[in-house]
Amino acid sequence: MKPNVAAAKAALPHLDLDTSEAAIRAKSRDFFWYSPVLKARLDHVMADFVVSPRSEAEVIEVLRTCYAHDVPVTTRGAGTGNYGQAMPLAGGCVMHLRHMTGVKEIGPGRVICEPGILLKDLDTATKAHSGQELRMFSSTWATATIGGFIAGGSGGVGSCTWGSLRDLGNIIRLRVVTMEAEPRVLDFRGEELPRVSHAYGTNGIITEIEMPLAPAYDWVEMFVACDDFMDAVRFAEDLANQDGILMKLGTVFEAPIAKDYFQRVAPHVEPDTNLVGLMIAPHSMEGFLTFLGRRSEARLIYRNDEDDWPRSPGPVFEYGWNHTTLRALKVDPSITYLQVRYGFPEHKALIEKMQTALSPEVLQHLEVLREGGRVIFAGLSLVKFTTEERLDEIVRMHEDAGAMIFNPHRYTLEEGGRQTVDDRQLRFKREADPKGLLNPGKMIAWDDPDWSYDRMYAYPKLQAAE
Amino acid sequence: MKPNVAAAKAALPHLDLDTSEAAIRAKSRDFFWYSPVLKARLDHVMADFVVSPRSEAEVIEVLRTCYAHDVPVTTRGAGTGNYGQAMPLAGGCVMHLRHMTGVKEIGPGRVICEPGILLKDLDTATKAHSGQELRMFSSTWATATIGGFIAGGSGGVGSCTWGSLRDLGNIIRLRVVTMEAEPRVLDFRGEELPRVSHAYGTNGIITEIEMPLAPAYDWVEMFVACDDFMDAVRFAEDLANQDGILMKLGTVFEAPIAKDYFQRVAPHVEPDTNLVGLMIAPHSMEGFLTFLGRRSEARLIYRNDEDDWPRSPGPVFEYGWNHTTLRALKVDPSITYLQVRYGFPEHKALIEKMQTALSPEVLQHLEVLREGGRVIFAGLSLVKFTTEERLDEIVRMHEDAGAMIFNPHRYTLEEGGRQTVDDRQLRFKREADPKGLLNPGKMIAWDDPDWSYDRMYAYPKLQAAE
Repeated sequence: MKPNVAAAKAALPHLDLDTSEAAIRAKSRDFFWYSPVLKARLDHVMADFVVSPRSEAEVIEVLRTCYAHDVPVTTRGAGTGNYGQAMPLAGGCVMHLRHMTGVKEIGPGRVICEPGILLKDLDTATKAHSGQELRMFSSTWATATIGGFIAGGSGGVGSCTWGSLRDLGNIIRLRVVTMEAEPRVLDFRGEELPRVSHAYGTNGIITEIEMPLAPAYDWVEMFVACDDFMDAVRFAEDLANQDGILMKLGTVFEAPIAKDYFQRVAPHVEPDTNLVGLMIAPHSMEGFLTFLGRRSEARLIYRNDEDDWPRSPGPVFEYGWNHTTLRALKVDPSITYLQVRYGFPEHKALIEKMQTALSPEVLQHLEVLREGGRVIFAGLSLVKFTTEERLDEIVRMHEDAGAMIFNPHRYTLEEGGRQTVDDRQLRFKREADPKGLLNPGKMIAWDDPDWSYDRMYAYPKLQAAE
Repeated sequence: MKPNVAAAKAALPHLDLDTSEAAIRAKSRDFFWYSPVLKARLDHVMADFVVSPRSEAEVIEVLRTCYAHDVPVTTRGAGTGNYGQAMPLAGGCVMHLRHMTGVKEIGPGRVICEPGILLKDLDTATKAHSGQELRMFSSTWATATIGGFIAGGSGGVGSCTWGSLRDLGNIIRLRVVTMEAEPRVLDFRGEELPRVSHAYGTNGIITEIEMPLAPAYDWVEMFVACDDFMDAVRFAEDLANQDGILMKLGTVFEAPIAKDYFQRVAPHVEPDTNLVGLMIAPHSMEGFLTFLGRRSEARLIYRNDEDDWPRSPGPVFEYGWNHTTLRALKVDPSITYLQVRYGFPEHKALIEKMQTALSPEVLQHLEVLREGGRVIFAGLSLVKFTTEERLDEIVRMHEDAGAMIFNPHRYTLEEGGRQTVDDRQLRFKREADPKGLLNPGKMIAWDDPDWSYDRMYAYPKLQAAE
């Protein structure tokens, strides 16, 4: 079962193949370097070649060929993920879906498209067609693909209203190609969707996507300032609980995140300013301003439709979700982050507890999220990194307090998730990837079913660093 | 201050005046007869004349003229309210807004219109213009006006997602004409809106309305059957808590409501069938069917897009909200109803307690409602009426258990609400209706500030029955 890379490449000359070392290196990486832990382990990872299929037929050809020659295939979109999920740990083929950008059908409340289209381009198409847009998108909207978002993401801008990608109704249908001697093409709906959504392409390649749409509005983007951190948290939560105010984003930044890391915001805030970033539908602005008028603790310091700042801060959502970490990292390279779920009804108490215990080593960055019909918070806390041991200790402190951690310093599905095997994904991998060639090293349950999760998993076949 | 009706009529001959006794009698009534208590007290109520202004200018003329001659003015739309709110308790003028049906402007997420347009016609206009519709409407959508809904209603179909009319953002702006020597025209937004929304026209006349819109979809209307009542309640609640499934209606009918009162549904259900009525967005149907597949206790017995019933049941929302009462009344004239709020987080326990204590004398009819971001239930319970004393006792049982009652057997704002003076409405009435001529007898705080609410209020100037 030794991969025959040369034979695979030789069989695919009519496809868009990339074999220059610089290109291969670039396309073998994602934003894993947000994590010093992953940076230390994956920096050298590199594929043998990159192929960019132009159609589902070419995807099938790549998978059939690589199957025949035992070559691993790691599929990627724009590579904006943060967990090394698009990195070819065992080398082989990186399949880049950048040519598969077709929008096949748009109707009321839905769109059918190919996986490689950028979120931004998809929104442009649906907005032009009928004033519609995606319910949710990652903060990498301008550069990330819809396929990557579904295969490697969990939610984002819009999740304050619509919940997460895994929630019923937030993906309608996925078409998936298997990696077998003769690849099959399967249409998944309903209970079948979790087999391949957020599976990092470990058990099938998504070639067509049907997503629900929401109306597109010229969202009013705003920053609201509060002197007290928990006032800012309550402001965001209470606003999200206003059923008549339509909202696309609610982000809370503990001080001094805004002053220290948001260059264009900094001149307008103080070091002790806690900031709330918002996107509100224009026809909800009367309601929002009424709500704001009741909160003397909150000051509206910026709205994009009445901007008097000499330098525009750009889209407010590009301060939220994982862009917060990116902005902090650019100023202070020692910053990394955690992903926390503060569940209902203890969410505010948990946040306050963690903030009291860990600030400023850990600064709270919270995203309003709906889960099971309730407003809660996801934390993408900024962490001043010192050692891996201290990072693990901080993780444990959260878990001991009852705040669930989705560890972004791990490259496996299980460790980045709930630390348990997803049986649906594993069972489908057995069926769809019998040789275990799809994105190897990312599903512990496949490689080491008895793994105990007592330490960080290390994929045995991970390429050796030179 | 004796009304000079003859002088007022004589001053308005160029307007659309209705002076035939039959017409005046018909237009002096609403659906107050749902309540045997109101039926006994208001059946004889009759205006002296009816005027139907064609424009805001004519509304002003009517108000100015009636003010000059001390003639009471009770304003109405279609008269589909249930609390006698559009009935002229002291006679005088009924101002009917049926000619004021203009749609002035439609934009993304909003519409500006006149108050007399039917909800149905407004939805037709916004749907044709840009695929939009009202966020919420009463079950009398086909016959009721938007102005009547705002002045006399509180929520309805759509409130499972958007909350109630009083929630911030669910009304954008109201233009209001006062009743003074020289009527003023005022634009109300934000904190000013509660002055006149749900005020029965007691302190100003709404002449222009700006409402938020939601996308219009071809909602899939369904009935789901459960053998167990609380299973049906949980089904509706859990579905409404699915953030990714877009819903417009969730109604629960305790058995045997469906069998006994829903003629076209009866052949398809048993006496012990508890029914759930639903409207789900078409692009949420995959998610809905997945949810349904997890609930073995629930059977989908009807969907309007795959209808195999020999006789169509018609719109499912015309079984919900106050249409439930109407259908029951047609079969059993002794039926009346209550309006109950089962608040979070005790809502299900309260419902079960009331059902256990009072069924079948009181049958549970529940509407999924969002309040403060949480899914709760409004009860429009069907009551087998015996005596007023027993009805009062049933009301007390609910209140003692902690379920708030909005008594639909009362014609005043306070008794139908939270039994307290709404200071905003009272203060605005002092300013806008100094002579107290607008819809007299409906605001206790105006007539009798020291009223103790220990018994049903009886307006002293109520017309005497012949």
